[in-house]
Amino acid sequence: MWIMTKDTPVAAICLIGDELLSGRTQDTNTQTIARFLAPFGIPLGEVRMVPDDHSRIIEAVNALRHRYDYVFTTGGIGPTHDDITADAIAAAFEVGISENADALRLLEDRYRDADVAFTPARRRMARIPHSADLIQNPVSGAPGFQIGNVLTLAGVPKIVEGMLSDVGHRLQGGHVVLSVTVKAGGLREGDLAERLGLLAEAYADLTLGSYPWFRSAEDHGVALVVRGTDHTRLTDAASDLEGLVEDFGGVPTRMEGDSRFGD
Amino acid sequence: MWIMTKDTPVAAICLIGDELLSGRTQDTNTQTIARFLAPFGIPLGEVRMVPDDHSRIIEAVNALRHRYDYVFTTGGIGPTHDDITADAIAAAFEVGISENADALRLLEDRYRDADVAFTPARRRMARIPHSADLIQNPVSGAPGFQIGNVLTLAGVPKIVEGMLSDVGHRLQGGHVVLSVTVKAGGLREGDLAERLGLLAEAYADLTLGSYPWFRSAEDHGVALVVRGTDHTRLTDAASDLEGLVEDFGGVPTRMEGDSRFGD
Repeated sequence: MWIMTKDTPVAAICLIGDELLSGRTQDTNTQTIARFLAPFGIPLGEVRMVPDDHSRIIEAVNALRHRYDYVFTTGGIGPTHDDITADAIAAAFEVGISENADALRLLEDRYRDADVAFTPARRRMARIPHSADLIQNPVSGAPGFQIGNVLTLAGVPKIVEGMLSDVGHRLQGGHVVLSVTVKAGGLREGDLAERLGLLAEAYADLTLGSYPWFRSAEDHGVALVVRGTDHTRLTDAASDLEGLVEDFGGVPTRMEGDSRFGD
Repeated sequence: MWIMTKDTPVAAICLIGDELLSGRTQDTNTQTIARFLAPFGIPLGEVRMVPDDHSRIIEAVNALRHRYDYVFTTGGIGPTHDDITADAIAAAFEVGISENADALRLLEDRYRDADVAFTPARRRMARIPHSADLIQNPVSGAPGFQIGNVLTLAGVPKIVEGMLSDVGHRLQGGHVVLSVTVKAGGLREGDLAERLGLLAEAYADLTLGSYPWFRSAEDHGVALVVRGTDHTRLTDAASDLEGLVEDFGGVPTRMEGDSRFGD
């Protein structure tokens, strides 16, 4: 179940890169961005992963930016031949793209300070779609950019994290979604499911998720996560979940937050 | 760059689950499925991640199944109230859904053998879209299913891996894509980029990817990955990549396969 109020801004991510689709690289930027957005009260509504292909990037970005309040893209803004995201974003917005004076200065300064050659390939990273704002990159210098509701970030996780420090002030947040996790080690989803469904109905203003983990016969269980904007309701639901776990002979562990339990 | 021959079957994945979009759970099934498909010569063309929402699942599955040769879904086939994938798939195909006799027998046997109560909630997992084939689940019993070109798997990574053992025989493969990785530790993408672009042009029948990793000033570099179906061309390209790395003072490391290097 996926509920949100009408005034909740919702974000999407477009992950760009052949290396993600080939299985070479494990995406972690989705989780980083989702966790970054949570305190702003901005849930993720969708993620799409597409290859380094001009028309596929344009198609995905246009589909997402008309549907969601914010769209993050990751990947494809480096100096090599397969870095085509900036051009695709410009095409998606039907604007031109050329060297941006501020981006050029940032790059020139960076490479001069690092005593690294400012090659023509590196200079390509100063090409920014017209009317876009730069997003600072404290890690490696080459900036991302925002045009309309689309925020274009790097692909390397460390650099994404760095760029997010220049993103928060751009966002109009919604109601912050709080969550409480009740862990039920050793229990099985199927035992709890029926009464869990009744609780989900009783707390229809919250979302109630059931996430089994299974590593071995000894290490399995269910994490019950309740999410919502009203702290009192959340606390009530968590107490009921603890009661449910105890009724099935489990020892519940409650944690604030949307915690993971090894699954 | 993303090239494929006309007779290459292409797959997509629809990842289903609020817990993925909230950042609670790190998806790893994309990588598992991508690596499983590679030896069949079936690349991934797209991945979409959507919430546990009936209409959103239908929309994504219908978009993907008409565009790709195979669509894998993960998540949402457990016993709890938020497990709505089977109903959504049935709706996407406009077929009915009810208890499947074979699935019911599998589940009954499983829970009897494990001496675990076969609750009404668990029995829900026997509900399978009409005309679907079951996909065996050697890990926890509850089957996935295939209807048309859509293969519906569990969400828990261990169970996904188990179910894939009943998937290979269903696939019509394409040309297997081989890859060679040349690692250039300590080098920077921007130095190699220009000549790399020339090599990409010279080997237009292959795809040439450049994947920087950056952990610290001491631990960074570029992994150059060349992919294609012709082993001789691949080997030639890899030799040229090694020459390129040496020209920039690097010590190239060659590995067969689309290897990761800590990024």
